[in-house]
Amino acid sequence: MNKEAVINQNGKEKAIILLSGGLDSCVTLAIAKDMGYEVYPVHINYNHLTMKRELTAYNDICNFYNIDENKRLIVDISYLSDIGGSALTDRNIKLETNSIPQSTDKLPSSYVPFRNANMISIAVSYAEVIKASKVFIGAVDEDSSGYPDCRKIFFERFNSLLEIALGDNYQVEILTPIIDNNKSEIVKLGMKLSAPLNLTWSCYQGEEESCGVCESCFLRLQGFSRAGETDPIKYAQK
Amino acid sequence: MNKEAVINQNGKEKAIILLSGGLDSCVTLAIAKDMGYEVYPVHINYNHLTMKRELTAYNDICNFYNIDENKRLIVDISYLSDIGGSALTDRNIKLETNSIPQSTDKLPSSYVPFRNANMISIAVSYAEVIKASKVFIGAVDEDSSGYPDCRKIFFERFNSLLEIALGDNYQVEILTPIIDNNKSEIVKLGMKLSAPLNLTWSCYQGEEESCGVCESCFLRLQGFSRAGETDPIKYAQK
Repeated sequence: MNKEAVINQNGKEKAIILLSGGLDSCVTLAIAKDMGYEVYPVHINYNHLTMKRELTAYNDICNFYNIDENKRLIVDISYLSDIGGSALTDRNIKLETNSIPQSTDKLPSSYVPFRNANMISIAVSYAEVIKASKVFIGAVDEDSSGYPDCRKIFFERFNSLLEIALGDNYQVEILTPIIDNNKSEIVKLGMKLSAPLNLTWSCYQGEEESCGVCESCFLRLQGFSRAGETDPIKYAQK
Repeated sequence: MNKEAVINQNGKEKAIILLSGGLDSCVTLAIAKDMGYEVYPVHINYNHLTMKRELTAYNDICNFYNIDENKRLIVDISYLSDIGGSALTDRNIKLETNSIPQSTDKLPSSYVPFRNANMISIAVSYAEVIKASKVFIGAVDEDSSGYPDCRKIFFERFNSLLEIALGDNYQVEILTPIIDNNKSEIVKLGMKLSAPLNLTWSCYQGEEESCGVCESCFLRLQGFSRAGETDPIKYAQK
């Protein structure tokens, strides 16, 4: 199968970026731009606790990079909230705080069942229509919450699916440029690329101020600390 | 990884059924019930031309089988229509009529980019929360419109992804019981299982009467004819 021409008039290949508005996805966008791609950021709302704040972060980051409105795509999949099963979408399920899971047998309550497959499928549908050659996702394997759909093998198998799943001589590949990095490396990379880390949002439960204690804040603060940097956003407590 | 217990109090395993309301998905539901599964039918609306009529068919079929309201799930993914690229969601793209595609190089205009991956991902998220062991989809490989996401290899690769994608000792598998059947065999199987074929809807463009000329009507009518049966639904023309 020959790849269809996906080079734009400006000589750049198109890439979809899954951009939640968090630290990892912001740095991933910065990497894609640094690699020379014309970026199409996709934001996915699944009626999660901090969806309004994350949407603001998404738009702030897109504005920072002067990304045209018609290249942005905001998608609602609140059905994930209807289906439930996660502390991120069900206010009756408690979030872990001040820790990250240590066991691979027990997933954290923040796990959203098969979420990344839903998100990547959307990104690939969009990619196929605009003939983007890459889908970037800021998944992190090692220094993460242990979600099964953030592991390297997950993306390898998804790419194996993509090799045969699409039509008409078209191919797309998922890229995970920070999957092997730890949080402090991601912070350093973001600063090196002048990514607007001050505009990002990582907290799982706060929308006014970051709580500083949920597992996402915990990992982020630890990353800045280990990088010897100060996190530019405000916290209710650290 | 050991499979978690997924047997219900009534001794039945749970299965998600992707039920569009068409002939193929209705027969697939009948097969799942015949195999002894407790069925959870999922209907997915992507703002396609015949979405209202298909939703009616879905509910009619669920009512025929006395499936509890709380086991049904209706999901809106109209973002697929926003993304576009298909005659099923974009009224400016023309549907082929009175034929099925003969070439694998050119997809029919009814192809919806990566649609089945979006649908299966939703079904798997639902399956993981209710601990269903199977996801049934009525995809047909041979006697079909040649969509790449209806081929056997697509489901094999998706199952390979599922082997490593889910959490906490849980496994789910996609089953495609009619993938090797042609339409006349599917009609015969439906009649053998007393599936309510009179309640199904296959037409891609009509909602009052089936057009009789789109590729979906064409395949369906050919199937009934070759099975030596009369299609119980009405057509504007044949």
